[in-house]
Amino acid sequence: MMTEKQKIRLGIIGIGNMGSEHCRTILAGKCPETELTAVADLRPERRAWARETLPDNVQVFDSGSELIRSHACEAVLVSVPHFQHEEISIEALEQGLDVLCEKPAAVRASQADRMIRTAERTGRTLTFMFNQRTNCTYRALKALLQDGRLGKIKRVNWIITDWYRTQRYYDSGSWRATWAGEGGGVLLNQCPHQLDLLIWLCGMPSALMAKCREGKWHHIEVEDDVTVFLDFPGGATGVFVASTGDLPGTNRLEIDCERGKAVCEGGQVLIRELEESEREICFSSDDPWYRGESREYPLEIDGENPQHAGVINAFAAHLLRGEPLIASAEDGLRALELSNAIHLSGWTGETVTLPVSRERFDRELNQKIAGSHLKTTGDITYDTSHSGTGERLSGSDHTS
Amino acid sequence: MMTEKQKIRLGIIGIGNMGSEHCRTILAGKCPETELTAVADLRPERRAWARETLPDNVQVFDSGSELIRSHACEAVLVSVPHFQHEEISIEALEQGLDVLCEKPAAVRASQADRMIRTAERTGRTLTFMFNQRTNCTYRALKALLQDGRLGKIKRVNWIITDWYRTQRYYDSGSWRATWAGEGGGVLLNQCPHQLDLLIWLCGMPSALMAKCREGKWHHIEVEDDVTVFLDFPGGATGVFVASTGDLPGTNRLEIDCERGKAVCEGGQVLIRELEESEREICFSSDDPWYRGESREYPLEIDGENPQHAGVINAFAAHLLRGEPLIASAEDGLRALELSNAIHLSGWTGETVTLPVSRERFDRELNQKIAGSHLKTTGDITYDTSHSGTGERLSGSDHTS
Repeated sequence: MMTEKQKIRLGIIGIGNMGSEHCRTILAGKCPETELTAVADLRPERRAWARETLPDNVQVFDSGSELIRSHACEAVLVSVPHFQHEEISIEALEQGLDVLCEKPAAVRASQADRMIRTAERTGRTLTFMFNQRTNCTYRALKALLQDGRLGKIKRVNWIITDWYRTQRYYDSGSWRATWAGEGGGVLLNQCPHQLDLLIWLCGMPSALMAKCREGKWHHIEVEDDVTVFLDFPGGATGVFVASTGDLPGTNRLEIDCERGKAVCEGGQVLIRELEESEREICFSSDDPWYRGESREYPLEIDGENPQHAGVINAFAAHLLRGEPLIASAEDGLRALELSNAIHLSGWTGETVTLPVSRERFDRELNQKIAGSHLKTTGDITYDTSHSGTGERLSGSDHTS
Repeated sequence: MMTEKQKIRLGIIGIGNMGSEHCRTILAGKCPETELTAVADLRPERRAWARETLPDNVQVFDSGSELIRSHACEAVLVSVPHFQHEEISIEALEQGLDVLCEKPAAVRASQADRMIRTAERTGRTLTFMFNQRTNCTYRALKALLQDGRLGKIKRVNWIITDWYRTQRYYDSGSWRATWAGEGGGVLLNQCPHQLDLLIWLCGMPSALMAKCREGKWHHIEVEDDVTVFLDFPGGATGVFVASTGDLPGTNRLEIDCERGKAVCEGGQVLIRELEESEREICFSSDDPWYRGESREYPLEIDGENPQHAGVINAFAAHLLRGEPLIASAEDGLRALELSNAIHLSGWTGETVTLPVSRERFDRELNQKIAGSHLKTTGDITYDTSHSGTGERLSGSDHTS
């Protein structure tokens, strides 16, 4: 009998903003079952940073491909620009490595489809960095909605505009906020967590209509202001508003259910719970203007907010002992598919039903890319060590 | 020289829910410059109520027309179902009476056009019961936006779902919540105040796209759930959500401006004010993720909330001394036009630009009316003495 394996050996591909933060997280001892054994980056200055900063036993590679083929690790964390998620993840899976990939899963749902098919065929694990699922506030809300106390969801309203960005942010990379370089704006860079949480909490919408306003607040070609109407299969409806141009912004999620409502804002969830279902009150009450009583209370929250470390630890525990992941490969696809559907509706002005047509989306995005202009500014890597602490509900969206 | 006139002699046409409440308001001494001299109602039971309840010097008429031609008053308050606003208001204006008409101005903008043209031709006063403009909270917000401290408006989000109605409400009148009898649902009956306030605070939208869901929460043929995307001429955008099916509901108005934001909820307005304009910060700050400082404070509110009495008193003061009205005739038209545009977009699925085509709206509504079914339930008049106190921001929407 072999001794039980203690740690997974992890390589991080891409050590820009988010990848270097993941290095720091692991080296700070927050991931006791993960050993950082390798990093890779195409940029010499990032490799120089790695050699200077990381322990000597961490191997530094010139490319993801070299890292993948090095046998320096058995799992990789993919933290490169969105467009490269597919190629690098698939190469890693094909080489027998397990993959934790940054959000969004990719740029196109068709790419995520291929990533999932490769994981299935190779029998390797594919998961995504949906660290906001580890946030105590959203975990408590998820448990509340699952226990059935509030009944079926009727309406959701999420105003998520508290990720303000200045023009400097967009000028920090030539690829940033371009169709060719990033494939989208606020939807692909800031929204993936919220789109995932929306699906996790409320289910997958069946149709939507969106307004995506491109370069509304910044000199960029992609959308920085998005408003979406959502229809869910059970009849619930929703509104989702996101922007990088509001200061101070808002992060307020309201979920109205048959037996009450939950309002999540400022790290608190306030519940107003009815004694009976509104659907019964509506057809049984003699009072035309029934108001009745509702019990108002703050939802109990455990305060634990492991964020990226939580996702990495669950990934390690899954590989070592088969414990559950924070999110499945399909969860990554669903969040991206919702994002693609919003883009498609915004571009065409049409109501889009889900599942979204991969062909239609790819064709429309290709047209956008054909007219895209990479910027001439240089690439800057910022210290994002303030992110991912969970102090702000919408923190940790500073990827790549 | 004549002695200065002390009071206007007012007749109230329609003494159902709201009209009887107006009688009580005046008789309670809240309108010192208004003398109630006449009432009219088509229904014998309401006239019986008037003879029993009102002082002997208030004449009771069988119809609006009789009241108008009786010389019992020089001004009328029109409080009849929406479809009759045009005919009765125009008859009163033609007979030389001044008119204060309940909201909405009418059902069709084309009707309000004719009412305004008649007022202009006859030189009489026409105004509408926009009593929520007297609400201390909205008055303070209006003053704040007008003084320019927060700069230009960028975004408005109004979730106004706190006017829950049970099926009993809709069953209380055969005309209620039918295309033929009322011409619409939550948009025409509950929303007129908020549509007026939205225009008053943020200006008239230039285009909109709406989802109007008919009979979503109740057994009715008209809409009881509405979501609207708004575009304003200056580039601001908005979302407006209204429903009579949410319990407990929400009334939260957020207005984001270039120098900060105002959030109005629960009778309070919370301000977060920036030291400089976000539009300047965006292009001058070196910080990609600028957060900066904002001064947070509750907006000072004077607590005065005269509601219907305030509108009636302003009407009297205008007729007696030329003082300003609470709302102009054109304000009534604008709120109705916005309502018509939302309906039209909801019915057709199209983006609607304003000014709305009267012909198109009338044609589409006529089709709805052609398929309309009046219900077989009887008419009930409720005691609405709890309304109009301003205790609830969305109170006093219990008209007719």
